[in-house]
Amino acid sequence: MPDRHVLVLAGGRGERFWPWSRPERPKQLLPLAPGGRTLLAATLDRALMLAPPERVLVLTARDLVPAVERDVAGRGVQVLGEPVARNTAPAIGVAAAWCLAQGGDPAFAVLPADHLIEDEAAFAADFERALTVAEKERVLLTFGIRPTSPEPGLGYVQLGDRLAERLHRVAKFKEKPDRATAAAWLADGSYLWNSGMFAWRASVLMDALEACRPMIGVPLRELAAAPEAVAFALALEQIFPVLESISIDYAVLEHAPNVLTVQATFDWDDIGSWNAWARHQPRDARGNVVFGDAVAVDCDDCIVVGDGGTAAALRLRDMVVVNAGGGTLACRVDDSPDVRRVSDALKARAR
Amino acid sequence: MPDRHVLVLAGGRGERFWPWSRPERPKQLLPLAPGGRTLLAATLDRALMLAPPERVLVLTARDLVPAVERDVAGRGVQVLGEPVARNTAPAIGVAAAWCLAQGGDPAFAVLPADHLIEDEAAFAADFERALTVAEKERVLLTFGIRPTSPEPGLGYVQLGDRLAERLHRVAKFKEKPDRATAAAWLADGSYLWNSGMFAWRASVLMDALEACRPMIGVPLRELAAAPEAVAFALALEQIFPVLESISIDYAVLEHAPNVLTVQATFDWDDIGSWNAWARHQPRDARGNVVFGDAVAVDCDDCIVVGDGGTAAALRLRDMVVVNAGGGTLACRVDDSPDVRRVSDALKARAR
Repeated sequence: MPDRHVLVLAGGRGERFWPWSRPERPKQLLPLAPGGRTLLAATLDRALMLAPPERVLVLTARDLVPAVERDVAGRGVQVLGEPVARNTAPAIGVAAAWCLAQGGDPAFAVLPADHLIEDEAAFAADFERALTVAEKERVLLTFGIRPTSPEPGLGYVQLGDRLAERLHRVAKFKEKPDRATAAAWLADGSYLWNSGMFAWRASVLMDALEACRPMIGVPLRELAAAPEAVAFALALEQIFPVLESISIDYAVLEHAPNVLTVQATFDWDDIGSWNAWARHQPRDARGNVVFGDAVAVDCDDCIVVGDGGTAAALRLRDMVVVNAGGGTLACRVDDSPDVRRVSDALKARAR
Repeated sequence: MPDRHVLVLAGGRGERFWPWSRPERPKQLLPLAPGGRTLLAATLDRALMLAPPERVLVLTARDLVPAVERDVAGRGVQVLGEPVARNTAPAIGVAAAWCLAQGGDPAFAVLPADHLIEDEAAFAADFERALTVAEKERVLLTFGIRPTSPEPGLGYVQLGDRLAERLHRVAKFKEKPDRATAAAWLADGSYLWNSGMFAWRASVLMDALEACRPMIGVPLRELAAAPEAVAFALALEQIFPVLESISIDYAVLEHAPNVLTVQATFDWDDIGSWNAWARHQPRDARGNVVFGDAVAVDCDDCIVVGDGGTAAALRLRDMVVVNAGGGTLACRVDDSPDVRRVSDALKARAR
């Protein structure tokens, strides 16, 4: 088997799970996955189905490195801290440079650390296939998810020519639609959710980055010439801060001619809200998700979460009540995607 | 002026302000009074309008003595801890014994420490009058409050013969009524709320206690023979635990022939719920009470309280959201009198 690698992207700072998620404990470090695992730990379990630990690289923010290392302790994977946040294109380019620096030209998978996937066997089979394609062809593979609801909060991929079973060219990447458009795309059937998971060979990604975004690609090509771990880390310190902050979609995938989409056979959820998370949790007889140190007294269809303190909901319906990270949130379930408004209000108050 | 005394009853363990109130920090120690004072500190301010500090006795539970002493620090009042909780009759009897032990037979006022009174001048004038009556007549004076709403959560006093302006015999003490009865009593006009505030001479109370409840009165009469502070405290330790736990209303006032009611001219609120407390707080332009470390984002008529952590409510109406004492509560404003159901659920869960 070739020396496949996996890049786990664990630098996110999502605020949708405030007060549980905080800048110092973002979503990927919360125990939102089955079995009480963090999303990062569950992602690592999947990564280790694709590659041995010495070829798994976890990229995160520098200040999150200690927390991430605690979470992956004993797994033997490599954790690197980004000195500043630069979105996915520089991060993925660094991973390509890291692979190339070790000689060879392995295929590698890119896995965001804050998504939820429950069918791990289907995940492994799909990635096995995609990595095999990536090893044979000079293509950029994105993973698309068949929509199950009209979701305005996600990016979409419009399918182009069919090349094989569940393997298409990409006709076009689509920005987050309005709800009506999302409903039309759901009915149409030729649009998939853009999952942010990818597979490609290191040299193919590096070539595409150089061609589409040379200001990012050329410096990272130089980084690939530093095969020693210490030299690599030092070069990263110097190069990373001057790179443009941009997603791999904007920088490369929307422009490159050789982008394909694999339609996943596994489930996938980016759990962008309390409600999305609750869909994966067991409910009591009255439809409540009661998680951790929490009670729902005479409630229906509520989400009550206590982590580090008791959360109590009394005689409510369709409400989210959270006590976590020392903070308290109460809102309607339907409003849970708008929790960012609370973070914004708190920042405004702090100023 | 005679050596008037004041007894402040500060042993309550009310759970209606959970999670702010806890067994170790009950309602009287919460900053629920105007000016950010605790209810106990505000009660002490009123007590000191009636008597000098050396004649003010604060009775509380033994384990609350340190917290109470912190709250009354520097005021020069006496704090005594009850070894076990025995309701109001033994506590008031101890105060009578304490007065008698020091020689003389002073009138003393009894003030619960967890009520809210804003018109302190009217309070002082009313008590001045009541204590003057108590010094002249061998009567037991209770303070009645003219109802302003049909309140099922309170005891009532039915007025008997009028003796003077706002001074009546008591026809009957009435248990907590149902809402319809409370409405009828409100319309009738001859029923007052039983406030739990009293005025009487030490010997008159002691005689009534001996006559109505000798099992309590006789041992306390013996306590009155211990004039030394240390001897008094030691005797209290031995006597108190064997006394019956019963309220002064049940033990004495419902049976004694010499009970009168003074109709107060001051406001009074036992603030038995979050909503009752909020009536005394300033509101923002959309009717929200936002207290402490709290934000109400796009909310109307909510009560949002943060003490020791942030509380955030998002797009809610008529809700109580509390982060205090490390716990979180969310309920409708109308359900706030039923918070005890949460404490009960937590106790049941702990078993």
